[in-house]
Amino acid sequence: MSEIKEIIETLVKFRNERDWEQFHNPKDLALAISIESAELLELFLWKKAEDVNTEKIKEELADIFSFAFLLAEKYNFDVKEIVLEKIKRNGEKYPVEKAKGTSKKYNEL
Amino acid sequence: MSEIKEIIETLVKFRNERDWEQFHNPKDLALAISIESAELLELFLWKKAEDVNTEKIKEELADIFSFAFLLAEKYNFDVKEIVLEKIKRNGEKYPVEKAKGTSKKYNEL
Amino acid sequence: MSEIKEIIETLVKFRNERDWEQFHNPKDLALAISIESAELLELFLWKKAEDVNTEKIKEELADIFSFAFLLAEKYNFDVKEIVLEKIKRNGEKYPVEKAKGTSKKYNEL
Amino acid sequence: MSEIKEIIETLVKFRNERDWEQFHNPKDLALAISIESAELLELFLWKKAEDVNTEKIKEELADIFSFAFLLAEKYNFDVKEIVLEKIKRNGEKYPVEKAKGTSKKYNEL
Repeated sequence: MSEIKEIIETLVKFRNERDWEQFHNPKDLALAISIESAELLELFLWKKAEDVNTEKIKEELADIFSFAFLLAEKYNFDVKEIVLEKIKRNGEKYPVEKAKGTSKKYNEL
Repeated sequence: MSEIKEIIETLVKFRNERDWEQFHNPKDLALAISIESAELLELFLWKKAEDVNTEKIKEELADIFSFAFLLAEKYNFDVKEIVLEKIKRNGEKYPVEKAKGTSKKYNEL
Repeated sequence: MSEIKEIIETLVKFRNERDWEQFHNPKDLALAISIESAELLELFLWKKAEDVNTEKIKEELADIFSFAFLLAEKYNFDVKEIVLEKIKRNGEKYPVEKAKGTSKKYNEL
Repeated sequence: MSEIKEIIETLVKFRNERDWEQFHNPKDLALAISIESAELLELFLWKKAEDVNTEKIKEELADIFSFAFLLAEKYNFDVKEIVLEKIKRNGEKYPVEKAKGTSKKYNEL
């Protein structure tokens, strides 16, 4: 079994044992990702990255991944496929010759 | 090579070709995850989940995964490992017998 | 009429003319505040504050205020009162002698 | 003194007594608004709005207002002015005859 499939199966098992699928509609899963992202962000608030506790980053990032994998599962998305597709599309929005060394958004390039 | 390693290598190649590592400090990567999460959230704003365009969900979710993988790479986290560890820890915070069928937070159980 | 009341009345008039109250339930208003906050955040992404376009900050901040005022209106909160109350409560969580010059959270002080 | 000026002066006094201005750069204030917005959002997670504790909404909304006022103060924005200006601009993006009764974004109208 692929790595990602294994992670998703473990998450789904955890969810089902607790009968939580009833709460996990796509809208609330999207909320959960945003909330966990803000908890990650909070670790950096008023600080430089080097002053942040790496253990906590690990945990908050794991939470983001968990809800992102659960949302992907809801829609039967293949995570590898959708990320590689998006990279391809971003390659068109940010061609190397225009985007190199600049942090501008594609609509400002 | 594992699936996740392959995704991360593709993301890192994309980033390096554009000389973007200089912008990708952990704090700004955390910002990027939050921003992409809000773009996902916006798809659901004022709507029910079934009225949302699935193609767009795919794209926004791919963006979240991309920055989350890039942040994991920064800290050399093994994504599978950190998610499985977090699931284990959540199992302690949310034991089946207490958490089953309720959406309460662990500190209210 | 007080300044804040005047702002809220103008927002409510704008909303009602467009028959948007049906969409403005508290949960979606909370989503809207988060989304607008992320748009503000995006202005700072990969950048230093001094490189950010002040006009755009003005606009995104105005959007945050707008949805925050509309949510306050939903619950009939008096904005001045709730902010002053929260400052008082924060004064207890962050007493000057402990909190001075440090960015630590109250539970780490 | 105007109501908003009074709120801002109280916030600035609180901040200065704790010598926190050093942390309150615009980028981190924008982070703080996003983080507080997600704490508000969390109150609604997996829930319907009517099941949410109104007292907590009050507190989280007060936090959002506090950081939003502090960011406005950084740039010397007149809150009433910027909100009224944005409403005017939104009136052009969402003319009543097109926007009435629909939750579509202006670029889809």
